[in-house]
Amino acid sequence: MGPSALEDLITAFGRLPGIGRKTAQRLALYVIKAPRQEADALASAIVAAKDGIAYCAKCFNFTDRGQELCEVCRNPRRDGQVICVVEEASDVIALERSQLVSGTYHVLGGALSPLDGVGPDDLRIDELMRRVGDGGEVKEVILAHNASAEGEATAEYIYQKMSALTKVTRLARGLPVGSDLDLIDRVTLAHALEGRQNF
Amino acid sequence: MGPSALEDLITAFGRLPGIGRKTAQRLALYVIKAPRQEADALASAIVAAKDGIAYCAKCFNFTDRGQELCEVCRNPRRDGQVICVVEEASDVIALERSQLVSGTYHVLGGALSPLDGVGPDDLRIDELMRRVGDGGEVKEVILAHNASAEGEATAEYIYQKMSALTKVTRLARGLPVGSDLDLIDRVTLAHALEGRQNF
Repeated sequence: MGPSALEDLITAFGRLPGIGRKTAQRLALYVIKAPRQEADALASAIVAAKDGIAYCAKCFNFTDRGQELCEVCRNPRRDGQVICVVEEASDVIALERSQLVSGTYHVLGGALSPLDGVGPDDLRIDELMRRVGDGGEVKEVILAHNASAEGEATAEYIYQKMSALTKVTRLARGLPVGSDLDLIDRVTLAHALEGRQNF
Repeated sequence: MGPSALEDLITAFGRLPGIGRKTAQRLALYVIKAPRQEADALASAIVAAKDGIAYCAKCFNFTDRGQELCEVCRNPRRDGQVICVVEEASDVIALERSQLVSGTYHVLGGALSPLDGVGPDDLRIDELMRRVGDGGEVKEVILAHNASAEGEATAEYIYQKMSALTKVTRLARGLPVGSDLDLIDRVTLAHALEGRQNF
């Protein structure tokens, strides 16, 4: 079918999520034709990302290796009294891009999922409890989990454990901007009705 | 927005064709979470493909570096009297997968495109002429170019230069399998009518 180095590269690209055989082949052919410099840059970026990225000792967000705390936790202007709890470090990237969070984060590392064998001990819930318990400094915990069954279960669990210690809130559920009422799913509609607001 | 190594990797993935910012981020986050071994395998496959792939001295198909001729040209069972002319080495991969070509190939390296400044001298047409001219061994040249304006122009050009030397044919144009007559474009329909066949 072709040189083995080409087949190997197609296979390696094909292991990436959402990359099928055809896309993998297109990427491999591109790399072979690309300037040497660009191919080397991609290869080194992959290795550098594996080598250069660590997790914040406080909130478990991504941080540069060698830095104990992440950019957010190091920033003295961020409000340490508010902790926004997310499932994954990639959620922090999305929230930081929005510039809507002035507080800090806590990355759980997933969501409760009995079917997948993910229990409370597999998430960084104890670490969150310790941050909230430390001297009563934390005024609010915002649960920013995904709108999935696992996300809801995780939020419910944390709420039960933490509501005695501090204020616990969650992101609003309702109609996303630009949505057609007649196309929206029933559960979202139920949330939108339940959470209806006064003018 | 995050550690610089992560940003660098997102940028590097984003340079690949058809990979937007969101996909690049998804791939980068996957690589960071993937086992070290898998990330290293991808990085080395990229470098190995650049280092390990060369072009066949005869037909300009991909070959392993160190091999003067490609797999097809080395195979004594392939019919050297028939040359299938394609635009890119990736076309050879597609044709080899189909197992429909028993002859050999010639990779032009593109198609004539005056707008993009690609003239006959930029393609491997002289090399093809030499293969056909060598001792009259070549019985047929099959033009398997893309069904684009550039592909047609290239085929026409080669036909003019080569029809005195050997038999020159081209792939049939017509309805692709599974097509709906009422949805097919007018040009394809014209080709299908023009090339209509007896039962």
